[in-house]
Amino acid sequence: MLILGIDSSALAASAAVWDGEKVLSQCTVNNRLTHSQTLLPMVQHVLSHAGIALGDLGLLAVAAGPGSFTGLRIGLATVKGLGCGSGIPCLGVSTLEALAYNLEGFAGTACCAMDARVKQVYQAYFALAPGRDGRGTVARLNDDRAVSLEALEQELKDAHSPVYFVGDGAELCWRQFGEKLEQGFLAPAPLRWQKGESVARLAGRMLEQGGQPVPAEALAPSYLRLSQAERERKAREEARG
Amino acid sequence: MLILGIDSSALAASAAVWDGEKVLSQCTVNNRLTHSQTLLPMVQHVLSHAGIALGDLGLLAVAAGPGSFTGLRIGLATVKGLGCGSGIPCLGVSTLEALAYNLEGFAGTACCAMDARVKQVYQAYFALAPGRDGRGTVARLNDDRAVSLEALEQELKDAHSPVYFVGDGAELCWRQFGEKLEQGFLAPAPLRWQKGESVARLAGRMLEQGGQPVPAEALAPSYLRLSQAERERKAREEARG
Repeated sequence: MLILGIDSSALAASAAVWDGEKVLSQCTVNNRLTHSQTLLPMVQHVLSHAGIALGDLGLLAVAAGPGSFTGLRIGLATVKGLGCGSGIPCLGVSTLEALAYNLEGFAGTACCAMDARVKQVYQAYFALAPGRDGRGTVARLNDDRAVSLEALEQELKDAHSPVYFVGDGAELCWRQFGEKLEQGFLAPAPLRWQKGESVARLAGRMLEQGGQPVPAEALAPSYLRLSQAERERKAREEARG
Repeated sequence: MLILGIDSSALAASAAVWDGEKVLSQCTVNNRLTHSQTLLPMVQHVLSHAGIALGDLGLLAVAAGPGSFTGLRIGLATVKGLGCGSGIPCLGVSTLEALAYNLEGFAGTACCAMDARVKQVYQAYFALAPGRDGRGTVARLNDDRAVSLEALEQELKDAHSPVYFVGDGAELCWRQFGEKLEQGFLAPAPLRWQKGESVARLAGRMLEQGGQPVPAEALAPSYLRLSQAERERKAREEARG
């Protein structure tokens, strides 16, 4: 089955077509451009490069959060548009779990972290084990959450096996405490940011394990936290009593 | 310095812009399309996605072989065209060494192998060691060569540390003998084929270590072997005495 994978949850955006064995095509940009301008043309490029039409796809997979509120909305709106128009089933996946798939084949723990501002990251751990046939294991160890850098440092200070920092919060963790960890590793640059191929491969793995796709209308973002505007309004209301 | 990396040495083709710290943009296709039609548009996409013009690039890097004769000619012709027109310096890199950069961050040996037909692969070994700061070590262990699958199997039968098969000859090696090796690993699919980012990162590393770019006119392919037509003519001539 051909799967389109899309991630526009942060500054990097990426689209890819995965056929279950290889990445037929992928475009990635990591340059602070407006995803609202670049994402749909990127989807058109990867379909055309893969030599297929939209209707050939069996699944539309999208990183549904956590991540930038605007980025997530652009990604979900794009996939909803493609899905509603075509009737192709959809699947929203965790942005953090997709990031862990960037490190498929490694051994250790992926600490997937996205910058959530206010000294927090959106974060989850995944256990990584290599597979000899090119398929590694990526096993979730905790739920996606917003967590302070300080709390993360406490959790990791006695890590005794390799911890790989990945995601756009990886450098933040690295500078704050990761560098001091004996077993801390910053993921190599080409594997550090979002990839459409990882979204598509995770979605394929979820289907294999009985995951159910949904109609485009049912796709929903997972923000994990209130938006800055909502946090500020809540604070004002609480201050007023 | 902004580096454009191009690889069209085999069925997969890829172009990327690397700024020394991250991949600003990349497009990859692995679907048997004609590179003569896709490569230049892909270069235009990655420049536009990176938000830069050709003249902003400091180096044009290209996989110069080994690989498919036609694929290499298309890649080199494209880069020569861009370089002659703009005066931007160029660097040809080993296709096999660039493939090893796909596995930067792993620990073990990369067995980079490209299908050379007639039960041979173009091949070289590279020692891989992870780096905590995201920069791993990729150290060449032998010169690029054409070698029979049988000879490769003999060399690797007593391998006692992980050997990762990467390149479009990886599956060939895997099926022939790799699967039987206790320490044999097929590289994960997203890391198995050519990537522009790896060509660009290798070129950047070569410059750091004193490598000298050349003018576009001086770029030359490294075929390693006579073409099929040349081999057949030679055999006919030898048969005639």
